[in-house]
Amino acid sequence: MPELLPRARASQESIFARMSRLAARYGAVNLGQGFPSDAPPAFLLEAARGAVGRLDQYAPPSGLPALRDAIGADLGVDGADVVVTSGATEALNVLALSLYGPREDGTGDEVLMLEPVFDVYVPQARLAGATPVTVALRLDPGPGGGWRLDLGALRGAVTPRTRALLLNTPHNPTGAVFTRAELEEVVALAREHDLWIVSDEVYDELYFGAPPVALRTLAPERTFTVGSAGKRLEATGWRVGWIACPPGSGGRLAGQIAGIRQQGSFCAPTPLQAAVAAALPVARAGGFYAGLRQEYAGRMALLAGGLEALGVAVYRPGGTYFLTAHLGAAAPDAGRLVESGGVAAIPLEAFAQAHAAPPGLVRLAFCKSRADIALALERLSAVLAAT
Amino acid sequence: MPELLPRARASQESIFARMSRLAARYGAVNLGQGFPSDAPPAFLLEAARGAVGRLDQYAPPSGLPALRDAIGADLGVDGADVVVTSGATEALNVLALSLYGPREDGTGDEVLMLEPVFDVYVPQARLAGATPVTVALRLDPGPGGGWRLDLGALRGAVTPRTRALLLNTPHNPTGAVFTRAELEEVVALAREHDLWIVSDEVYDELYFGAPPVALRTLAPERTFTVGSAGKRLEATGWRVGWIACPPGSGGRLAGQIAGIRQQGSFCAPTPLQAAVAAALPVARAGGFYAGLRQEYAGRMALLAGGLEALGVAVYRPGGTYFLTAHLGAAAPDAGRLVESGGVAAIPLEAFAQAHAAPPGLVRLAFCKSRADIALALERLSAVLAAT
Ligand SMILES: Cc1ncc(COP(=O)(O)O)c(C=O)c1O
Ligand SMILES: Cc1ncc(COP(=O)(O)O)c(C=O)c1O
Repeated sequence: MPELLPRARASQESIFARMSRLAARYGAVNLGQGFPSDAPPAFLLEAARGAVGRLDQYAPPSGLPALRDAIGADLGVDGADVVVTSGATEALNVLALSLYGPREDGTGDEVLMLEPVFDVYVPQARLAGATPVTVALRLDPGPGGGWRLDLGALRGAVTPRTRALLLNTPHNPTGAVFTRAELEEVVALAREHDLWIVSDEVYDELYFGAPPVALRTLAPERTFTVGSAGKRLEATGWRVGWIACPPGSGGRLAGQIAGIRQQGSFCAPTPLQAAVAAALPVARAGGFYAGLRQEYAGRMALLAGGLEALGVAVYRPGGTYFLTAHLGAAAPDAGRLVESGGVAAIPLEAFAQAHAAPPGLVRLAFCKSRADIALALERLSAVLAAT
Repeated sequence: MPELLPRARASQESIFARMSRLAARYGAVNLGQGFPSDAPPAFLLEAARGAVGRLDQYAPPSGLPALRDAIGADLGVDGADVVVTSGATEALNVLALSLYGPREDGTGDEVLMLEPVFDVYVPQARLAGATPVTVALRLDPGPGGGWRLDLGALRGAVTPRTRALLLNTPHNPTGAVFTRAELEEVVALAREHDLWIVSDEVYDELYFGAPPVALRTLAPERTFTVGSAGKRLEATGWRVGWIACPPGSGGRLAGQIAGIRQQGSFCAPTPLQAAVAAALPVARAGGFYAGLRQEYAGRMALLAGGLEALGVAVYRPGGTYFLTAHLGAAAPDAGRLVESGGVAAIPLEAFAQAHAAPPGLVRLAFCKSRADIALALERLSAVLAAT
């Protein structure tokens, strides 16, 4: 019997899926995978129940017109420049296929990305035939420390083969929100070398200090914005995401991207698209995102404060629903932690590529119930006391 | 500003999306795109309304265990060998990435497919770095004629680079259902050259004569079966499909394929997966598919009989919800037909690759209401009278 191709044999279960599976097996509190423990808002659920039985057939590959318009209105762009995808994961994959690939000389276009790196960026770039190049964030330890963009390193990584910058702000896994000044320097670099910018902003509404700056407002001519209804509306399993293309092409770029997107999954789920279209303006007008931020700020304080009380160094995030914490070099690794410590966490080494992550550094999700966070703290207290 | 890659610039709006768009614009009866005009069955809708609000977060990339088991039970395979995808479109794309790709010598693995060819097969193979090679079906004209597998041509197309056969039975766009004897010869060829078989069986429950033979029952060791809940359960917009892998790997093949699949859209929509899991056994036990076949046999007879009464040559299908018909070389082309004739049809040339399709030959969908079919016949009568 023939074998699968090496690229399939090499592909691995995602660390998030694996940790969720292990958490279920061992009865661990799942602070690993980034999905909320609360149900999505009632206005979204009602819209979906109403759409099912009414809008069940193929949508256009670029998305239901009502959803493209709702996303456009929300982001301040034209609906004709929006392409709806099956989650942000597909948006990122479609952009990889559209923007960077193999080069005539047998090498690949280079795409710069930040490390620690969200897990799908690297294999997606490789599947597209491009070469991922990661640039490490700087981790300033100690109080007031945290993750910083290293602009010198970013600039130093540009080569004649570089074709795109893939950024993520607020940044998963670190929770860093890059400042306007930092992003302006990134934009200057992109302009100097005529690079595309892919800006993964799935956590655009989840921040705890200054609101994140959308890169499209700084460099509209070259920025593709990636978003996720799953992250925005607490429904990660619904698989509705989007790409907002640079304006001014009269929808031409969106049309070409939709053309490639239809090879992947043809269209996003129609009834859930319709529900998101109805929910986006309600969420905005009703203050849903502000409520979410307030709620998650409280849970973040609970987790961060609890960890600090255990003597754990915490890097408080400016956004996302994750924080990074240093459990100490002597702490059990994530495998032992989920199996015998009763807590699922994602080790930072899962986001490492070219730069080793310090052992003991983990990402913890606080989009979980207060009861789960308290239980995780209790268990971590026992684990750490035993090390 | 940089440009999108040629592979994105070259990608085109699918003929189905385009015809649906034009049908809406010109108020034409849409016998183009293959989606039913009826709502999905109530047992499916109820299951979805119940799942929303309960199962809204990420599913494992391989699918909800309950759905993998339900698909396995339905197909007679082990749930551990099943991978759930965002529609059959994604299943086909994931298999392309897993089974055929670029070769060391700079060429691509060859994958044989039947022509007229379902539109996504060719671009998916190219995006995967492989070389699509189409083998024409024979069209025997006249009464009792129809589309036949050309086994000699298939055999003649195999080269040392051939790695897979991509078959589709019941076949879109022709409606052909290949016989057991034909498929046994295909299997012998695959065994002789150690080829994978990708069997696209999304219309497995839609047949009007002898039930289609599932290729996995003839060549379990090398067959990947592709299926679609959207086609089975009349909900093409729900984006739940599947791959059943060859048995005996203890789920290893499914795990590798899920690993590549997660780069595409991470997982299929969770609440809709849950609904399909509940609905599959109900559909089977309740005779839903038999009812569907009976209903569509009636609509097929209405459309085919009506066309024949207009003097149009019809190739009656053994399966799918499409028929092919020869409107005559003097008939308006599909663009003019939708614009001024009031009927959307898909020209067979949209499925042509290496072999020109006769002008005037179209695919017509009969998964539409009887009223729409009658109206289309009326309009076609006027159009044909004027030619
Ligand atoms: C930075 C980032 N981008 C993209 C995604 C994928 O989002 P989606 O669930 O919409 O595919 C995630 C999910 O965790 C993420 O953290
Ligand atoms: C032969 C064939 N394969 C695959 C598909 C795609 O199915 P899905 O809607 O599940 O992606 C279709 C849809 O028309 C089809 O006709």
